[in-house]
Amino acid sequence: MAVGQCDFPQMQPIPGISLGTACAGIKQHIKDDLLVIAMDAQASCAAVFTQNAFCAAPVLVAKANLTHAPRWLLINSGNANAGTGAQGMQDALKTCTDLAEIVGGNANQVLPFSTGVIGQSLPVDKIKVALPTAINALSSVNWDKAARAIMTTDTFPKGVSKIIWLDGHAITINGISKGAGMIQPNMATMLAFIATDAKINANLLQKCLAGAVEQSFNRITVDGDTSTNDACVLMASGMSEAPEIQADSAQYQLFADAVMQVCKQLAEWIIRDGEGATKLMRIVVTEAFNSAEAVLVGKTIAHSPLVKTAFFASDPNWGRILAAVGRAGVESMILEEVQIDLDEVCIVSKGGRDSAYTEAAGQRVMNREEITVTVKLGRGNAVEEILTCDFSYDYVKINAEYRT
Amino acid sequence: MAVGQCDFPQMQPIPGISLGTACAGIKQHIKDDLLVIAMDAQASCAAVFTQNAFCAAPVLVAKANLTHAPRWLLINSGNANAGTGAQGMQDALKTCTDLAEIVGGNANQVLPFSTGVIGQSLPVDKIKVALPTAINALSSVNWDKAARAIMTTDTFPKGVSKIIWLDGHAITINGISKGAGMIQPNMATMLAFIATDAKINANLLQKCLAGAVEQSFNRITVDGDTSTNDACVLMASGMSEAPEIQADSAQYQLFADAVMQVCKQLAEWIIRDGEGATKLMRIVVTEAFNSAEAVLVGKTIAHSPLVKTAFFASDPNWGRILAAVGRAGVESMILEEVQIDLDEVCIVSKGGRDSAYTEAAGQRVMNREEITVTVKLGRGNAVEEILTCDFSYDYVKINAEYRT
Repeated sequence: MAVGQCDFPQMQPIPGISLGTACAGIKQHIKDDLLVIAMDAQASCAAVFTQNAFCAAPVLVAKANLTHAPRWLLINSGNANAGTGAQGMQDALKTCTDLAEIVGGNANQVLPFSTGVIGQSLPVDKIKVALPTAINALSSVNWDKAARAIMTTDTFPKGVSKIIWLDGHAITINGISKGAGMIQPNMATMLAFIATDAKINANLLQKCLAGAVEQSFNRITVDGDTSTNDACVLMASGMSEAPEIQADSAQYQLFADAVMQVCKQLAEWIIRDGEGATKLMRIVVTEAFNSAEAVLVGKTIAHSPLVKTAFFASDPNWGRILAAVGRAGVESMILEEVQIDLDEVCIVSKGGRDSAYTEAAGQRVMNREEITVTVKLGRGNAVEEILTCDFSYDYVKINAEYRT
Repeated sequence: MAVGQCDFPQMQPIPGISLGTACAGIKQHIKDDLLVIAMDAQASCAAVFTQNAFCAAPVLVAKANLTHAPRWLLINSGNANAGTGAQGMQDALKTCTDLAEIVGGNANQVLPFSTGVIGQSLPVDKIKVALPTAINALSSVNWDKAARAIMTTDTFPKGVSKIIWLDGHAITINGISKGAGMIQPNMATMLAFIATDAKINANLLQKCLAGAVEQSFNRITVDGDTSTNDACVLMASGMSEAPEIQADSAQYQLFADAVMQVCKQLAEWIIRDGEGATKLMRIVVTEAFNSAEAVLVGKTIAHSPLVKTAFFASDPNWGRILAAVGRAGVESMILEEVQIDLDEVCIVSKGGRDSAYTEAAGQRVMNREEITVTVKLGRGNAVEEILTCDFSYDYVKINAEYRT
């Protein structure tokens, strides 16, 4: 069950970026599970990857190949090719070679991505058989199909399309994403693929992506589990008529802001589709000493099973939020400075329940499907926002009953 | 539901330590909710408290009074007196004054402890009325009653009794504890009270307790939520005939080991009674570079909702354990060095599923009620053990349905 309306938007085509899907039957035969994204030769490409020390084989290959001016992304769902040792590396490389052979390119210009079951060998033969279908299907209008092909246990395809104007020329930014944290037993990976027709060099594109990811995908959490396969790619075909975007320019700022908005929306879709989610919570930490402190407090609240189950029960249990703030590990915090609001209702001030707070007011807010928790620390000016969802019976069900 | 057999043991009386309980009707009238523990004048006392920055009023008072040679502990269940601001401080001090008046002592020699609902005023009048009953009941044989009086949502009273011999004289160590993490909505606090008739000065006793707590109560976790009221007290009446225990002596080592064993057993009871627990997991991290690293990896596994739900489902989902090790934040970990065993079954070696592993073997272990997860990091010689329990429907139920 997803929180709120999550319709797939109308996606504009991006000149120089084409997408093709196929059903390789990796784990199921009902929907496409293979996606190829092709970039024109002059495109630049940026990517960020999971910080899990044990990243999956395709992540290692994609990281290495990112330096070779990538031309193709090869994504499969249904198998993460993670925890697969040396064989996993060979398999990831094999799929790149297979794709390169068909398109007549270099295998090191292919970035592979896998999402799905951990610890099982990637069925490279199935992928090889399905590759020609995906490649023949390459087209700039396949964003919807692409978003569906990368889904694992997602309940809806996730896409964002945005147009900005630079010097009188339109620039389109499209993004698709899948899968919150590690949704389902053995299922891993958040993936996001974003493309634009802007002209921008790879270094600047990488800077732009890193900044956007920090404020979007790195500000969401379902259960605190970082997958072995997380990746986010930003491709720029350079086929817009707008002039090349230069560092430190007003145009760069406009572009970077738009990329961040796309990333934030894709990240929000992921939380809205969090496993068993019934509520979306925005944890806004204000008046922090610095950004790191604000993130620490926000994530401590967002990861607290006690806070998450209280929200599932629509219980305005401010003691749990206050206790989470207190155990976040921030030095010399002063309880009397802390204020906590649920949407427009102040629940905690000066170290205890706010004098004007009523249970009825708290309950009125908690009955909502989307709730902003604002925590003022009274220590400085830093503000950060973390998105998360509640913890329901269905979370346990989804994560416990995989084999039954 | 508790994991395993959890019978309350036969507790030996401790000369110089007496306990009395009463029903103050703080939150219910079914069982005693007030406990007074009295120490003889020559006793020494040590205590450690929650590291939550927002500790409750009684914790602040107990910390301050610890320096005044405490003679009495005053413990109530049903109300945590946490998040209660300035009034909470006054209330905690008031209960100390009320007790001191009855026994003719100093209020600053009373250590107050509260456990229960957060954010509600402590009913000091009810406590005052019940205090004479508890004080009249003071006796060295009331350990069972004391263990029951401090229970909140615990499903069984928790006690340990141990005798050691120093220089031919018996020394008894008794301990009682309650409540895992923050068990129930609004319910806070792990409390443990340990007493011995050993003769040992307060500084050495404090050192002994700090060491024992680090290896016991600081090595357990139910949901990662540190309460605002956690406390552990060690009292030594000095009435044993054994000579005073000196620093750095063989006798100290024997005594400290025994105290640690008592703490470990009390901590284990708490996990066995974790909310909704159906399984006890011992996470043993070996071959770590240092102790901090071993604890970090162990707690990351123990806090992972994905690992915990997999154990609830008896699912040998090694990918989740491996992913948790990978995201623990240990620098330059080498996947190929990591080995993971479930009891006697090796599931992961050299970065992937062990070649000899079978699903049947994994399932055989996972069906057990108590499971040891051994993670070898291949980086050094440090070993640490973390105790935790699984994550069940009942965890969500207990924590979500408090108000319904």
